[in-house]
Amino acid sequence: MACRLAGTTNSFRKDSLNRMSLQLVGDRLPEGSVMEPFDLKDIPFFDADYEAHGFPAAARALAELLARCDGLVIACPEYNHSMPAALKNAIDWLSRMKEEPLRGLPVMILSATKGILGGARVQYELRRVLDSVGALPLVRPEVFIGMADRKFDDSGLCIDPQTCRFVDAQLVAFMRWIESTRSMRQSCARLPSRAVTG
Amino acid sequence: MACRLAGTTNSFRKDSLNRMSLQLVGDRLPEGSVMEPFDLKDIPFFDADYEAHGFPAAARALAELLARCDGLVIACPEYNHSMPAALKNAIDWLSRMKEEPLRGLPVMILSATKGILGGARVQYELRRVLDSVGALPLVRPEVFIGMADRKFDDSGLCIDPQTCRFVDAQLVAFMRWIESTRSMRQSCARLPSRAVTG
Amino acid sequence: MACRLAGTTNSFRKDSLNRMSLQLVGDRLPEGSVMEPFDLKDIPFFDADYEAHGFPAAARALAELLARCDGLVIACPEYNHSMPAALKNAIDWLSRMKEEPLRGLPVMILSATKGILGGARVQYELRRVLDSVGALPLVRPEVFIGMADRKFDDSGLCIDPQTCRFVDAQLVAFMRWIESTRSMRQSCARLPSRAVTG
Amino acid sequence: MACRLAGTTNSFRKDSLNRMSLQLVGDRLPEGSVMEPFDLKDIPFFDADYEAHGFPAAARALAELLARCDGLVIACPEYNHSMPAALKNAIDWLSRMKEEPLRGLPVMILSATKGILGGARVQYELRRVLDSVGALPLVRPEVFIGMADRKFDDSGLCIDPQTCRFVDAQLVAFMRWIESTRSMRQSCARLPSRAVTG
Repeated sequence: MACRLAGTTNSFRKDSLNRMSLQLVGDRLPEGSVMEPFDLKDIPFFDADYEAHGFPAAARALAELLARCDGLVIACPEYNHSMPAALKNAIDWLSRMKEEPLRGLPVMILSATKGILGGARVQYELRRVLDSVGALPLVRPEVFIGMADRKFDDSGLCIDPQTCRFVDAQLVAFMRWIESTRSMRQSCARLPSRAVTG
Repeated sequence: MACRLAGTTNSFRKDSLNRMSLQLVGDRLPEGSVMEPFDLKDIPFFDADYEAHGFPAAARALAELLARCDGLVIACPEYNHSMPAALKNAIDWLSRMKEEPLRGLPVMILSATKGILGGARVQYELRRVLDSVGALPLVRPEVFIGMADRKFDDSGLCIDPQTCRFVDAQLVAFMRWIESTRSMRQSCARLPSRAVTG
Repeated sequence: MACRLAGTTNSFRKDSLNRMSLQLVGDRLPEGSVMEPFDLKDIPFFDADYEAHGFPAAARALAELLARCDGLVIACPEYNHSMPAALKNAIDWLSRMKEEPLRGLPVMILSATKGILGGARVQYELRRVLDSVGALPLVRPEVFIGMADRKFDDSGLCIDPQTCRFVDAQLVAFMRWIESTRSMRQSCARLPSRAVTG
Repeated sequence: MACRLAGTTNSFRKDSLNRMSLQLVGDRLPEGSVMEPFDLKDIPFFDADYEAHGFPAAARALAELLARCDGLVIACPEYNHSMPAALKNAIDWLSRMKEEPLRGLPVMILSATKGILGGARVQYELRRVLDSVGALPLVRPEVFIGMADRKFDDSGLCIDPQTCRFVDAQLVAFMRWIESTRSMRQSCARLPSRAVTG
């Protein structure tokens, strides 16, 4: 199956370990599949007064990218046990759009850190937020790349065979996940999102 | 589509609001579908020394029930912002079995409380635990039944039309979810569960 | 006890319910105490390449404000079950400063939403992030202001006596918390923050 | 300062790594302090119908132990990303008692696992639950003992100097925490626990 994916990492840093991890995903895509990376930093902070006049161009462009993709890959850094602001901000803008670009969208998550935990805390918070907007994060396998600074060389290439194998296995599972959930992308959108009965 | 579901609530109490909620699900199943309830209290606390001699009969019986079901419904009380012990205990025992009875299993969650939050905290923790064992909790819609003591009569029947409609909508989504994820139940089981690269 | 507090809400919106809630806290401070509000929107997204050249002026100003305060009040909106980006962003910048302005700082949290849950999800994530930087969030009482649009009038004044009483009780507890933890603010700073033994 | 601590681990297993970790804490207590261990497995599952006739003797005994202690140490295993059942069960029983034995009680948490994450997920859930009952978990330093099976010898003694140092540092911080929060133990109990304004 050939898929079109969108890929992002919050990290703005040039030599970001998560940027390298995202690139690793791009390098190991199955034949025929492509990944289009996008940046988050041109989307201004969410502001309801701003929104009254329309969506920022960068948020609108991101929504259009997602609309033509089969899935989204997020290589997510962990800042103080949780999500970086620019990623959360993009999700918040998207969640306000009528077409709900994240609803029913398959999402694959990985994270890289210098420490040994590899992002074990941020991934669960990211899942919770993605669930809240109706996205479909891949359940398994999880990929945490701990001590990541030892796993990429100066040019940003992964030199750790185990990490490569893990990413390969995650991609196999993600392609199946996209296939299995394809029929849900539209039907998902017509459901009531939440039912709190007070 | 006719489904066979297993249903449980942790609540042992006779007049439990979550038991009533589970019954409501049973009453509103689509034509041809059935739900088989099971109790959690006969499963002893997980103990690795006990496990060395085999699984408790009640845990084994639960695994067999799940093996012949298409999905699981959990009506989950919230105790101190998180999961009740007997439910967590059952999940822990199941997770130790070679056949991994929860892996790839669709799960529908609802919760009822007397307070107005309706279980808004426990559901996210339950999702996280279910994800960790490879189950497939339905993302949407969420159902929280707040102030539940006003929504069921003395015989345990739901007297709140909105709650009934929410459960109906959740069941429609769950039937689709079961259908969409059916192919994953086996494939899921063959994936590596987690890839922490230290 | 007369305290100097800093107060913030992520909300940029003029008629923000969380801004009104923060104002309510300001109006009900004990005699002699003051609260200085500050805005988050002038702090750019965290970027390690930017940081290499120094901290943004707005982040630096916030650190200086916190240094002369006894505690911090956060009236936190909930966006998609978690924290708004500008608040997380400010915490992330602060956490990079050598003096660690949040370490050992008492924090009082409240949240207001139009929905009935009142922010029941975001507060726990905010606590987790605050813990991670060594802040000291007040444990009890929690204040969730649900259906907040009915509780403030057009001029932004709280018209719900129960909400006022809850804020009063939280302020009493917060003043005690500040007093009790005063000795920790310095000692806290000298502890190792985390011990992961790989 | 000489303190009386209660100590527990959920683990029933004889050669439990968390039992060894708890023992390590006991061995490194400051001069004059003592730790009294207690077991959780004799407390039956929480059941509101049972409760109507009184509390189980084992839960009552635990409450009495806590009443005469200055703090509680929990060496907590992680099962499927969250808390083991017997620990959660004990907290749930305690939370139902009028005297609220956990309210205002300082708690020190550590966790040991064979994997490298060292319990990074369970500790946050345990903190959330402890917060919900008004306990006062020590914020810092956190101690995660990853790959713990290499860090204790056959007799259960810790052979990893770094782990010993981390536990020492945590104990120093905990003793200060007990001292600082002493005045809150009673005052804490008189506050309203939560204020949800519907």
